[in-house]
Amino acid sequence: MPKYRLLTPGPVAVPERVLLAMAQTVLNHRAPAFLPLLEEVRAGLRQVFQTGREVLLLASSGTGAMEAAVVNVLEPGSRAVVVRGGKFGERWGELCETYGVLPEYVDVEWGRAVEPAAVRAAFERAPDARALLVQASETSTGTYHPVRELCELTHEQPGRLILVDGISGVGVHDLPMDAWGIDVLVSGSQKSWLLPPGLAFVALSEAAEAAMRACERPRYYLDLRRELDSQVGNQTAWTPAVSLIVGLREALRIILDDGLEKVLARHRALAEATRAAMRALGLELLAPDSPSFACTAVRVPAGVDGKALLQHLRDRYDVTLAGGQGHLAGKIFRVGHMGDVDAFDMVTAVSAIEMGLADLGWPVKAGEGVRAAQESLRGWLAGGA
Amino acid sequence: MPKYRLLTPGPVAVPERVLLAMAQTVLNHRAPAFLPLLEEVRAGLRQVFQTGREVLLLASSGTGAMEAAVVNVLEPGSRAVVVRGGKFGERWGELCETYGVLPEYVDVEWGRAVEPAAVRAAFERAPDARALLVQASETSTGTYHPVRELCELTHEQPGRLILVDGISGVGVHDLPMDAWGIDVLVSGSQKSWLLPPGLAFVALSEAAEAAMRACERPRYYLDLRRELDSQVGNQTAWTPAVSLIVGLREALRIILDDGLEKVLARHRALAEATRAAMRALGLELLAPDSPSFACTAVRVPAGVDGKALLQHLRDRYDVTLAGGQGHLAGKIFRVGHMGDVDAFDMVTAVSAIEMGLADLGWPVKAGEGVRAAQESLRGWLAGGA
Repeated sequence: MPKYRLLTPGPVAVPERVLLAMAQTVLNHRAPAFLPLLEEVRAGLRQVFQTGREVLLLASSGTGAMEAAVVNVLEPGSRAVVVRGGKFGERWGELCETYGVLPEYVDVEWGRAVEPAAVRAAFERAPDARALLVQASETSTGTYHPVRELCELTHEQPGRLILVDGISGVGVHDLPMDAWGIDVLVSGSQKSWLLPPGLAFVALSEAAEAAMRACERPRYYLDLRRELDSQVGNQTAWTPAVSLIVGLREALRIILDDGLEKVLARHRALAEATRAAMRALGLELLAPDSPSFACTAVRVPAGVDGKALLQHLRDRYDVTLAGGQGHLAGKIFRVGHMGDVDAFDMVTAVSAIEMGLADLGWPVKAGEGVRAAQESLRGWLAGGA
Repeated sequence: MPKYRLLTPGPVAVPERVLLAMAQTVLNHRAPAFLPLLEEVRAGLRQVFQTGREVLLLASSGTGAMEAAVVNVLEPGSRAVVVRGGKFGERWGELCETYGVLPEYVDVEWGRAVEPAAVRAAFERAPDARALLVQASETSTGTYHPVRELCELTHEQPGRLILVDGISGVGVHDLPMDAWGIDVLVSGSQKSWLLPPGLAFVALSEAAEAAMRACERPRYYLDLRRELDSQVGNQTAWTPAVSLIVGLREALRIILDDGLEKVLARHRALAEATRAAMRALGLELLAPDSPSFACTAVRVPAGVDGKALLQHLRDRYDVTLAGGQGHLAGKIFRVGHMGDVDAFDMVTAVSAIEMGLADLGWPVKAGEGVRAAQESLRGWLAGGA
């Protein structure tokens, strides 16, 4: 009876409390009982987004919310600077190109954070660009981009907006929307939110809302004017994903009972322990300089077949990690730090990696990774570091 | 400890088996264990859609799937005949207008089925129209439109397509997609599918697929080319709503173990019993001539406040029915026949309506509705009628 262990950067393991909440009798979304539920969820989302603005709920994957950001806020024919340092940076670019927004790309080596100077140079090349599109955490490479600096830089010129894909960033990294001046912030349920996929979130600053109201591009299902006007009246524009919203209430209670600060510290600590373990094993991190706390991306060592390694971990040990995407397929593996995972789940991940590499004939220093992870985790659990 | 009874035409009551399936540990959608699950679901969907074509899964509400139909299949600037006999007919029209499809409306009194002759006349007024958009079951009025005749009429001229909103039609009415030549058929999880909202379905005929491949309108999240190309490889384009898909497997097992024919007969029988009961009470049906089996719409009798009636049923008896939408708000109530509801749930609905009307001072013939419902249901449960 092996236990199935899901350690990918989304979908994530969902706590039993949330699973059971979602198994409750389905409510009608127009019923009075749904109103306090939606109100609690809206208030909780604002806390995690660190904003006084409304956080809109969409029945979609995170990509739907990214599309909503583009089609509601950016006019066709307008220009935007797009940071492209991974699969999700490419997705911002594809969305712009699909919908007639002209991207000025800042291409970044996968695994590196964008240099603010490179974004500044792009704005100089495209002085009419009205927006910057970037990931907070680029899930495909496990890299964190310097959102705070990018907000400042974007706002050096009035009227410019910064759209941040926080799908694996919100609730993982400190991204105070209002304090930093993030104009559009997007997230998705299957990440830090302790939920299955199917629900996405997007919040707009006052300036982004003005741009949305002025934007004439046709849109309907993802029309955020309609969602915002409904949600301030404590409704949703379309039939919402009721069971996921019931789960979200429970998840938000878990997150806010713990406190956002502790939740962010947990992601950081799990990521740090994993990085320490990988280094102790002599493995190379893909993003050593600016790692995301959502997941840790590790280069598969020379001589090991990356796809075979992941399959082996799954088949023999029932441990599911993620592989690489795009040109990194087979070349990296990624350990997720979001969802219902704790210190010992990271120990388990490291242990499985050690055993798997040994099984595949790589000269692993058995126990060294686990030792390093433990050392790192002990400090955190003792209340230090 | 009153029981909460959800008798609206979506969201619907979800069977315990499905709720518990969704409470299982969340799978990663790229994991091998997800592959047979998705394959089973795809096969089951094809059976209920009565098609050999692929039924695409979207993480969205039904409106998202309606939008997908319009933006993938109908070119901007093209013309389409749109049947508008309720809120969802209006939605087809709004989608067309939003996306530059020029609608030739066939306006139908709410509660009446469209006359095929009126559609023929519209095609004559707009001979360049390439499509007909219609509901199978118009949920807002409880009306069934004659889909079979409309398919024949549409296909009298080669190259024309019929797009059918089967959100509350598929799995409720017999809508054999391939046999009748439905070109685009849409449905949504919170209806006959025994699921919470958040998942939508759309299938395309060969001709609709060709139109989709030729259509150059920009689209991304709802790009059905991408979904179809992914799904024939047993994947989804974006992160799917995994927990709802796990629930869908269980729901499809329930539906297909019963057999589609019996499932359709159940909806019909529950609707017939409800209509018989309402007539016995002297209440007027909104759609007497062509009733949908998804829900029965009943006019609130003169002197009774429709909104007060529904609120009273909810507050005193914990029975949730639906009201009217648009200009019918307060003027009708609707009893749903989809989801985890059986004969005695209909008896309960009728009983609550009788008690509620009496409470509000209407001279109800107490027991007459229940008696008529029982008589109708007995025939069905005895295997007759």
